[in-house]
Amino acid sequence: MSSNGYRVAVTGATGAVGQQMLKTLEERNFPISELKLLSSERSAGTTITFKGKSYTVEAAKPESFENIQIALFSAGGSVSKKLAPEAVKRGAIVVDNTSAYRMDPNVPLVVPEVNEESLKNHQGIIANPNCSTIQMAAALEPIRKAYGLSKVIVSTYQAVSGAGAAAINELNDQTRAILDGKEYTPSILPVKGDKKHYQIAYNAIPQIDKFQENGYTFEEMKMINETKKIMNMPELAVAATCVRLPVVTGHSESVYIEIGKDDVSVADLHHLLLEAPGITLEDNPAEQIYPMPANCVGKNDVFVGRVRKDLDQKNGFHLWIVSDNLLKGAAWNSVQIAESLIKLKLV
Amino acid sequence: MSSNGYRVAVTGATGAVGQQMLKTLEERNFPISELKLLSSERSAGTTITFKGKSYTVEAAKPESFENIQIALFSAGGSVSKKLAPEAVKRGAIVVDNTSAYRMDPNVPLVVPEVNEESLKNHQGIIANPNCSTIQMAAALEPIRKAYGLSKVIVSTYQAVSGAGAAAINELNDQTRAILDGKEYTPSILPVKGDKKHYQIAYNAIPQIDKFQENGYTFEEMKMINETKKIMNMPELAVAATCVRLPVVTGHSESVYIEIGKDDVSVADLHHLLLEAPGITLEDNPAEQIYPMPANCVGKNDVFVGRVRKDLDQKNGFHLWIVSDNLLKGAAWNSVQIAESLIKLKLV
Repeated sequence: MSSNGYRVAVTGATGAVGQQMLKTLEERNFPISELKLLSSERSAGTTITFKGKSYTVEAAKPESFENIQIALFSAGGSVSKKLAPEAVKRGAIVVDNTSAYRMDPNVPLVVPEVNEESLKNHQGIIANPNCSTIQMAAALEPIRKAYGLSKVIVSTYQAVSGAGAAAINELNDQTRAILDGKEYTPSILPVKGDKKHYQIAYNAIPQIDKFQENGYTFEEMKMINETKKIMNMPELAVAATCVRLPVVTGHSESVYIEIGKDDVSVADLHHLLLEAPGITLEDNPAEQIYPMPANCVGKNDVFVGRVRKDLDQKNGFHLWIVSDNLLKGAAWNSVQIAESLIKLKLV
Repeated sequence: MSSNGYRVAVTGATGAVGQQMLKTLEERNFPISELKLLSSERSAGTTITFKGKSYTVEAAKPESFENIQIALFSAGGSVSKKLAPEAVKRGAIVVDNTSAYRMDPNVPLVVPEVNEESLKNHQGIIANPNCSTIQMAAALEPIRKAYGLSKVIVSTYQAVSGAGAAAINELNDQTRAILDGKEYTPSILPVKGDKKHYQIAYNAIPQIDKFQENGYTFEEMKMINETKKIMNMPELAVAATCVRLPVVTGHSESVYIEIGKDDVSVADLHHLLLEAPGITLEDNPAEQIYPMPANCVGKNDVFVGRVRKDLDQKNGFHLWIVSDNLLKGAAWNSVQIAESLIKLKLV
């Protein structure tokens, strides 16, 4: 660390998540001595204001990372695959928000509330998990730690901002067209570049990311595989069904879990969640208090409510987990990893 | 049956479901010799056209049911509690779409594809199950019949039309207000008459109906208890989390099941569902074919897709079940029960 901070690069600075990363670095007063904003050729030249100072975004290339200490990446998997090793070669630690390296056994996949210690094994690249995985892992970790965890079945209610700024525009424009009785031809959702596109306004689409051969989507397999890796539990049974909703920001999850103990009460789980870092418990049915995406936007925490004991399975519980997919699901978790690297003196 | 049909009354004829009942009776060319349209005092006097003939809606009272053979009720639980016994006393068979009698041990709770035979035990009143329960029971029955069923965990994605016409208006008006950057104070959703009201546009609300003491909502307990009753399986483990979405019509459900056999394949379930009455299989991930609420509106069938084998549990499967909540979930199932009564010579 130089006298007044670290030399930081943000790759994908003009994107939805990149913008949130900058906002989060500002809000956290992250110690930065030098800031480099990088993007694709297409967005290069854009001017961005950070802490009152104007920055011109440069096209990212290997040399961009000379002298950089911390490089946050959120410019798509192909950019990370090409440039993250170049950044590492030049001495930077990369925190990568794409799926490029998440399942690489040499890359720690980190939710600081869950496995911050795994940062110590990094070899230059650290992966930020998938948005829907992060909030679930953060909420389940205090329960796993106290009582063990054997099974997770999650159904998601995901916002379109996870599919980028164009998807947000599609939802808004399409919604207005439908209200006005006009035609609107979708071209982005459910998956940009997939064969077919469907209406998202006033609809629910059970497809996020493309399909794999086994009938599960890549998003569902990310939730399954990444949860096991983050929790370091290859034996954990995880199942996921991922659904896109007409919500701009805020992913929600209906989660069923089986824990390692039979005589646990809802009050016990409430107690754990109240004490857990990064978790806000919102659970008072009598007062209609429960988390909702509309209330989580702009907040770093993961919100948990609707905690109920299963009526048949003694070690079974149901939870409703909500978080801002652009913050804890992406920008905030990445910045939080960078903060952990500093705290653990790894940078 | 008179020479040209049955003497039929529709109570709640001016409501969202009542309107769909009339449309369905028309479409099915239901044999009607005399039609009486009934409503609350407030809506009495309304004129409704049925098969090209104009009818004036009358305020429902005990005497309204003199000489009626089949009385369809969808005017709220309190109306059914008061007037269904009066209709029965006068010789009518009541098909009740409210929750008033569903768990009454003397009242058959019927999804014709599942338990049509139970109609034979009726004592005047037959209950139409909760919308979200009907579509799930119809889709799971062919599987249960072939392989047995031991566990069901469902997370719902429910449309606002289940909360009535005022809820549809609230969603539409609120959506436009948000798009226009205007304020909108919700007064209906999540539950008319409950203490607090929340934004539904661009949101997901994990509350349908009021909360019970045990932390589950009445809607969730309906799904749990009604499914066991319809399938005549008090021992079936059922868990539900019910969520309201900014969708006008069409309930979706992410359902996990455990069946009584280990070596069943997705192809086996496909085969069953293709043959099952009232079910349309829409399941081809390679072509992005799966059910969605926007596609189910106005159709009587229950649509099933995203059939996947659980990756850990040998007898576990995941399904995505979608249906028009006003049709199979209400009006069509009620009319279908009436058709079954005729077929079984019970009226």
